[in-house]
Parts: sequence; structure tokens; C-alpha cells
Amino acid sequence: MEENAKRIMVVVDAMGSDKGPATIVKGACQALEDSADLDICLVGDEKVIESELKANGAPMDRVRIVGSSDVITNFDHPVMAIQKKTDSSLVKALTILRDEPSCVGLVNAGSTGALLVGSMMFLSKPGERVRPALAAVLPAENGGFVCLVDTGANIDCLPSMLVQFAHQGSQFMKDMYRLESPKVGLLSNGAEETKGNKLVKDTHQLLKDDDSINFVGNIEGTNALSGDCDVLVCDGFAGNQVLKNSEGIARRIIMDIVKYSKQTGEPKFMELVKHLAAMYDFNSLGGGIVLGVSKPVIKAHGAANEASIRNTIRMLVNLARNKNIYV
Amino acid sequence: MEENAKRIMVVVDAMGSDKGPATIVKGACQALEDSADLDICLVGDEKVIESELKANGAPMDRVRIVGSSDVITNFDHPVMAIQKKTDSSLVKALTILRDEPSCVGLVNAGSTGALLVGSMMFLSKPGERVRPALAAVLPAENGGFVCLVDTGANIDCLPSMLVQFAHQGSQFMKDMYRLESPKVGLLSNGAEETKGNKLVKDTHQLLKDDDSINFVGNIEGTNALSGDCDVLVCDGFAGNQVLKNSEGIARRIIMDIVKYSKQTGEPKFMELVKHLAAMYDFNSLGGGIVLGVSKPVIKAHGAANEASIRNTIRMLVNLARNKNIYV
Repeated sequence: MEENAKRIMVVVDAMGSDKGPATIVKGACQALEDSADLDICLVGDEKVIESELKANGAPMDRVRIVGSSDVITNFDHPVMAIQKKTDSSLVKALTILRDEPSCVGLVNAGSTGALLVGSMMFLSKPGERVRPALAAVLPAENGGFVCLVDTGANIDCLPSMLVQFAHQGSQFMKDMYRLESPKVGLLSNGAEETKGNKLVKDTHQLLKDDDSINFVGNIEGTNALSGDCDVLVCDGFAGNQVLKNSEGIARRIIMDIVKYSKQTGEPKFMELVKHLAAMYDFNSLGGGIVLGVSKPVIKAHGAANEASIRNTIRMLVNLARNKNIYV
Repeated sequence: MEENAKRIMVVVDAMGSDKGPATIVKGACQALEDSADLDICLVGDEKVIESELKANGAPMDRVRIVGSSDVITNFDHPVMAIQKKTDSSLVKALTILRDEPSCVGLVNAGSTGALLVGSMMFLSKPGERVRPALAAVLPAENGGFVCLVDTGANIDCLPSMLVQFAHQGSQFMKDMYRLESPKVGLLSNGAEETKGNKLVKDTHQLLKDDDSINFVGNIEGTNALSGDCDVLVCDGFAGNQVLKNSEGIARRIIMDIVKYSKQTGEPKFMELVKHLAAMYDFNSLGGGIVLGVSKPVIKAHGAANEASIRNTIRMLVNLARNKNIYV
């Protein structure tokens, strides 16, 4: 097939995650099975990567291993680490993403701070040096997806930054889900236009005045993930609350069902637990997407399992296909 | 019994709720059944109140009806309404709470803004004119309760206001649950001391330095309702997100179970729905508590059902008993 002759490549930083490189490599192998037109470049400890690839029966002709002697950890200062640790897996992976046209995206499960700094330093769009945002794509109540931006990269924000998030999020939802005109909502403490803190009130007016954004108004917490908007804009402090609070409540209710199942001795409830866990495991659903950079970068959860790594790579493949990036 | 000879009274504004006075009166009647030492004063449309009381077989010797010709609605300007609508049910109820020693608390399901303004104007503690906070008492994962403060009365805050919330919340949890030294947490985007927006960082230092507060540090969204702290302090914008987002996710998961029950044709799942709905119906669990005033005031949800009204009155009775307020 003509289509399969064209190939794309994703670079994966195998180091720096809580679960170690084996889990990352396993997820990469699963992603290779998903997409026949995909190659993967793994960066990190060569020996470990190679033995894990073999243990998982990976197609070695579709894999490249790039060795690195250093790792950036959560204890490193992000800016210093990116500047000094030139032989780290992250810096090497960012270099490959920047320099190789066939490379369509990067996955990393290590330090969020270093990834954001590195993305800005290696992948700023020509002529601008935008501070990147970190978005999360979450399943909406109506069956679609909501791009929540920012989720924690920018804690103290100006109204202009929230407008930037609106543009970045809209572009991402166009690229990822082929939405023509993504609906943008502004997280507030009430749906009325007059509601909000100073930041939200000032941003509301700017979004309203911006003709290139399909602004649908304020969205309150109850409806954050209802699907009333495709992009939900907020500062990184508020977005972090929505993301983590949703995770916390979902996990708690699922644990309540496990308890109820044990109390009642009714095993049928455990089927439901599996069903709900798959729907609300925000961890394995993907990762944080770095917006505002020239090529897609995904931050997988530090404790990401192989399913999560597989899903993040699949997101990058979908993005590349939608944008028709084949070289 | 000696104890039953001593009596307490709660004043209930019967007007201004979404569901109308009948629901409020029904809830009040249920509360009368709960507590033999309780009298209730209902303020509003005399005819409607009287006929509803009779329809519910209320003990008329334990009920007082105070007629009022006016109602404050959500369309009224709070300050103007409290000043001008002197014959409104809310102003009359606040007057009774302020002036009658036997009256230990007030319940209202109308305009939040007017209730806050009215509470400040009628119930400021002598010598101070503190802007009140609105707290919510939510069920914690560990079986206890978390007092979340502020949940929306103070949207833009200074660090000194969050310290005030910490004091007000601690006092409330001492009064309500007889906790000796309530643990105070600060909502942030990470548990580490260095995490937070500018407001949170500045507040963190002030709380740490305040020896009269049992400060346990930053709490992130995942653990907002875990029970790691008894009082969770935040600005009203963030608190509103935690409250409404928790409600939204809980409601959504419960609806997912209803769908799953229908799909599988397994009626057992509907038992679970009832079980979870009772645990996560933040509406009927109580209402918003106005802190920083001389006597307890509870804001029931505008759409409060009779169970919710009953619970709010029960909270006021518990508070009075714990503080040994009998006249």
C-alpha cells in the first residue's frame, strides 16, 4: 500500500519515569503494533532498552536506540539541567525532535519543569519565544473531549496568557479531532458574564472581542467536563484543581464501589468497577500536551503504565496523520 | 426530662427558594420531629405557611409564624435589597436572629448575596465588621468532614483573608464536631511548600507563623476531600471549583452507573446508585455556612429539597447543643 510506504517517527525518552525504562519500552512496543507506519526512537540506557525490546519481541527494523549517559530528575533545576546535562536522554530526544523532519513528536515521563523549559528552548516557533502551556485532553460527559488548558505550567497568569491558551487549545483541537471551530469556554465561578475573579473578568472581555476564537462564555465547575466547550481555558492553578480534583473524586467513588461490592458479597459490582476505571483513569488516557511549540510534545504521568505510554504515542500518530505529516 | 425543658429556636426564611415555601415548610416539619427541644419560627407568606404546617401535621405549639409582605430575589441588588426591603422575609428573619436570645440560627434558600450582606449588617461581631466567608462542610474520604472555606463569597482575596478563613473554619469545626485542634490545610497545586500561586505562597508563610492555627501544609486537588485536613483554606474562586467540580464528577459517575444498569439489564446496580447518591448528594448534605458572624447562618441550595432543609436545621441544633446554648 502506498500509504504504508510513508513513515512517521516518534522519539521516546525512556528514562526519568517512576517505573523505570522497562515500562516505557513495553508501551512503545505496544504502540508499534497499533500503527504499521510508525517507527520509534528510544533514548536512554542502551543495554536496558535493547534487552527490553527483545524481551517484548519488537520489530527491530522499526526501532532506533540512541544511548545517553545522563538523566534529568525531578531534583534537578529545570533550566540548569537542560543547559548543563547535554548528554541526558531528554536533551538528546529534544535534539532529535527538532532536527529530524521524520520525527513527529516526543513522549517523556520525567520532570515536567525540565520538559517545559526544554520544549521552549528547543522548539520555540520562529520569531517568538512563547512560554508553553500544559494541556490535558479529558473525556467529556457528552462523549467528546475537552482540552483543559493550562493545567499547571503557568500558575500566575495575565489575561493575555489566557487568550493565548484559547488560541493554542483551539489549534490543538482542530489538529487532533479535526474540529472546524472548537468552542472555547472560560472557567469561572458561575456561567453569568459578571462572574469571575479579576483575571477571569478581564479575560472574558478579551475573548469576546477576539473574532478568531469561537468563545461560548463562562463555564462553571459543575460543567467543566460536560462537553459544553471543546477548550476550557483557565490559569494553571485553577486547571490543576479541576484535573486533580476530578481524578480524586473518581478514584474515591470507584473505591466506594469496591467496598460496597465486598460488603454485599455481590461480584457483579466488580465488573462495573472495571468499566468505570477504564473511563476515569485519566492517567492511562494520555498525558499533558505541551502547547505553543513547533512540534508536539507529550508529558506522560511520572507513574505512567505501559497503556498510558501506548496511548500518548497513539495521540502523536493521530496528530501527524490528521495534519498529513508523512515524509 | 430536665434537658427537654430547655428549648432552642431556629428561624427559617420560607421564601425565595426555587421550589417555593411548601418544600421549606415540609423540611422544617421533619426537623421538628428530629429534635424534641426545638421550636421553629417560619417567616414569609402566613397563609401558605399555615396551610402547609397543617397539611404536614406539625405540632403548632412549637411553631411560630411571622408574616412578611416582601421577598428578596436573585434579581435584587443585595445591599439595596437589605436596606430597602424592610418587610422582606429575610430582613425579618435576620432581625429575629439578632434580637431574640433563644434563636440559635437561621436558614435561608434564597439570594446568597443578600444573605451575606444581611449577615454582615445584622450580625457583625461587636467592634469588627468582618466580611463573612461562605464555608461548605463536605464528607471526607476517611469518614470525617472537611470544612472548605471560602466557596464563593470572596472571589479575589488577600493573604490576610485566607488566614481569617483558617481561624473561622477552625472555630466552626471546634464548635460543630468538638475537634480540639482542627488540622488546617491550604489548597495548592502540589503538596510541597514551594508550590502555589502568589496568594498561596504568601498565605503559606503567614499560616506557618500563626501559632494559634494547627497548619498541616499544602493540600493538592487530588486530596482536597481526603480528610488529611479538617479545614481546607482557599480563595472563593478555587473553592467554588472544588465544590462544583466534585458535585459534577459525582453526578456524572452516578449517571454512568444508571446507564450501565440499563445496558446490562442488571437491577442490582440501581441499589448502588441509591447508596452513592446518598453519599455524594452535596445538596441534601447541608448548605453553605456563613462564617465570621455572631450567630450561625446557613445558606441552603436554591433548589434545596426538604431533606436538605431538614439537615441544615439539624446542623444548627447540633451547633447549639455542642455550645450548650439553651435558654
